[in-house]
Amino acid sequence: MNFTFTSKDPETAARSGLLRTDHGEIHTPVFMPVGTRASVKSVEPEELKKQDTQIILANTYHLYLRPGNDIIAKAGGIHSFMNWDGPLLTDSGGYQVYSLSELRSISEAGVRFKSHIDGSMLFFTPENVIDTQRIIGSDIMMPLDECPPWPAEKSYVKESGDLTVRWAERAKKHLAATQPHYGHNQTLFGITQGGTYADLRTQISKQLADLDFDGYSIGGLAVGEPAEEMYRILELSHTILPENKPRYLMGVGTPENILNAIERGVDMFDCVIPTREARNGRVYTRNGHINLRSARFADDFTAIDEGFDNHVCRNYTKAYIRHLLNVGEILGLKLCTLHNISFFMWLTRTAREQIIRGGFREWKDDFLKTFNAGQQP
Amino acid sequence: MNFTFTSKDPETAARSGLLRTDHGEIHTPVFMPVGTRASVKSVEPEELKKQDTQIILANTYHLYLRPGNDIIAKAGGIHSFMNWDGPLLTDSGGYQVYSLSELRSISEAGVRFKSHIDGSMLFFTPENVIDTQRIIGSDIMMPLDECPPWPAEKSYVKESGDLTVRWAERAKKHLAATQPHYGHNQTLFGITQGGTYADLRTQISKQLADLDFDGYSIGGLAVGEPAEEMYRILELSHTILPENKPRYLMGVGTPENILNAIERGVDMFDCVIPTREARNGRVYTRNGHINLRSARFADDFTAIDEGFDNHVCRNYTKAYIRHLLNVGEILGLKLCTLHNISFFMWLTRTAREQIIRGGFREWKDDFLKTFNAGQQP
Repeated sequence: MNFTFTSKDPETAARSGLLRTDHGEIHTPVFMPVGTRASVKSVEPEELKKQDTQIILANTYHLYLRPGNDIIAKAGGIHSFMNWDGPLLTDSGGYQVYSLSELRSISEAGVRFKSHIDGSMLFFTPENVIDTQRIIGSDIMMPLDECPPWPAEKSYVKESGDLTVRWAERAKKHLAATQPHYGHNQTLFGITQGGTYADLRTQISKQLADLDFDGYSIGGLAVGEPAEEMYRILELSHTILPENKPRYLMGVGTPENILNAIERGVDMFDCVIPTREARNGRVYTRNGHINLRSARFADDFTAIDEGFDNHVCRNYTKAYIRHLLNVGEILGLKLCTLHNISFFMWLTRTAREQIIRGGFREWKDDFLKTFNAGQQP
Repeated sequence: MNFTFTSKDPETAARSGLLRTDHGEIHTPVFMPVGTRASVKSVEPEELKKQDTQIILANTYHLYLRPGNDIIAKAGGIHSFMNWDGPLLTDSGGYQVYSLSELRSISEAGVRFKSHIDGSMLFFTPENVIDTQRIIGSDIMMPLDECPPWPAEKSYVKESGDLTVRWAERAKKHLAATQPHYGHNQTLFGITQGGTYADLRTQISKQLADLDFDGYSIGGLAVGEPAEEMYRILELSHTILPENKPRYLMGVGTPENILNAIERGVDMFDCVIPTREARNGRVYTRNGHINLRSARFADDFTAIDEGFDNHVCRNYTKAYIRHLLNVGEILGLKLCTLHNISFFMWLTRTAREQIIRGGFREWKDDFLKTFNAGQQP
């Protein structure tokens, strides 16, 4: 993998870049739809491509549980398994161990936890999480980390962050000691932690930068802290993380979060918002989000976002999708999902275009003004 | 609408034909996927077209309840509402009144029933069911009928059949007294009843034939009677119904039922089997149906039906779809549905080709031999 800048915004830390993987190029800033269990909810891979999706995310923890490494290996990796031939990133599963498993114990060796599916006891180590991602065959891998909640005691965040750094070092060593299984190159990012403690975040980011990863994930944010705290940490991270490596803000976020993070030098995003909210009928427009379950759309025969040029807006009305949601037709969820993915793709693509033409900040301010003014509950 | 034969099978009553509607031509025999509430479960209209779907079915009863005539009228009819620009057929809602509504009372005037959605009391008449279908804008409409259960006392079947004939006459008169709302022509079929009583079926079929409908639906079958009884009634119907009008066997059925009915002169079919069974993981192959939920497909990386040239078989393996079903991903249901629709389209399309080349019976026997031999529970 390599990463090159195509341009930098003159007014902010925003940048546009080009990330090359063996499964194709990724133009950044980029939003990655979440395909946790080797499926972006209800949408086929070819439909994702038609919405300009460049890279998707899948989840090591979930895939490890089901279908399991054996099936993925026999399939020849996840690209072949799910019929997605574009770039794919896997998170390490660390976050899911902490958020989904009730029983877990962390040691220097790794994390022991109970499967939320069948209750069996499992053990993730920095090494075996790399092995699993070798089997999955993701283009971009994440090392095992520990993600503290927010707020958390500083002493705990420090101890946990130090462990994450040691695990990152082990992951990197194990990466070097192993080979890809399917002929395409796999790269590893480092994940910074440290919560919202500036000194800890600085220390950990520097230690990881010294380890020279191919890219940097900014972890432990978007876990409940105020947005301003997150932005402060991003500004700090920008000054520490190597400029010539891609930066991925994990689990973010709303359109506003994403644009504010782009402004602070972030290149990559993933979030369940477009897919999860779609399943509740919430769809995004340039004038804010609306909930299509609302009766006020029952006879609204306009597109979700009039003039927005995507498949769903070209072909379906609010009234029709509202009807589908109202009677419980699966197609309603699918159309909302497809629209939202398309909207988030448009958002980061437009941000990129504006960075290149030098108008990012003005466009961002205009967009957010309109977007926030139209926000519906 | 007009209907012309393109050929007749020399050995059987099977025929191929061409039905012209203002929304396009339909080559028969044809299977119509069911889009009860203006959506063929989980599948977009353009995807239906790519599976060679020529005509779909929607349900007057369900659409009348939700979204209701007002919304459909404001949408400019169902084609515009759901973005399907091909031919569309609506049933009258009679069958649903009898099968879904607990409280109903039938009189000469019509049927009073309780909505299964909100419990409100509603009244369907031969006239207002035509009005609703005028609003829906279906290309082919059905008159209100009464569909007796099987078995039923002969006296009841006779009384009910006589009422259905009188209602059909009223429907036809009302059709003539009303106009299409959206500029395209709408045609009305007659529905024969009479259960499996040969004399009653004969009488009612003759009375409807005398009324000169544009086509004939064969109703009151596939309601629990043995298949042989159904085939006997189809053979009888073939001798009575006008040869130059299309014949539609309502609610049928399995591949075997469909081919045996084609052999007995039926041109059109609809059934929830391909869509409903897909949602339980059952998919159709030329070697019988299989259930993809089964663990034995967990590492089967072949297509649902190897060498079957459709979108799902070209792009996905049994193991992947089994994984999707196993973890509850909506995409699994969608892929099974799309495959089954494609399979039923292939079945009737191939039957047609074989009728045209004069090899229908031989092909049918070969197909069923292979299909039934491979059947899985």
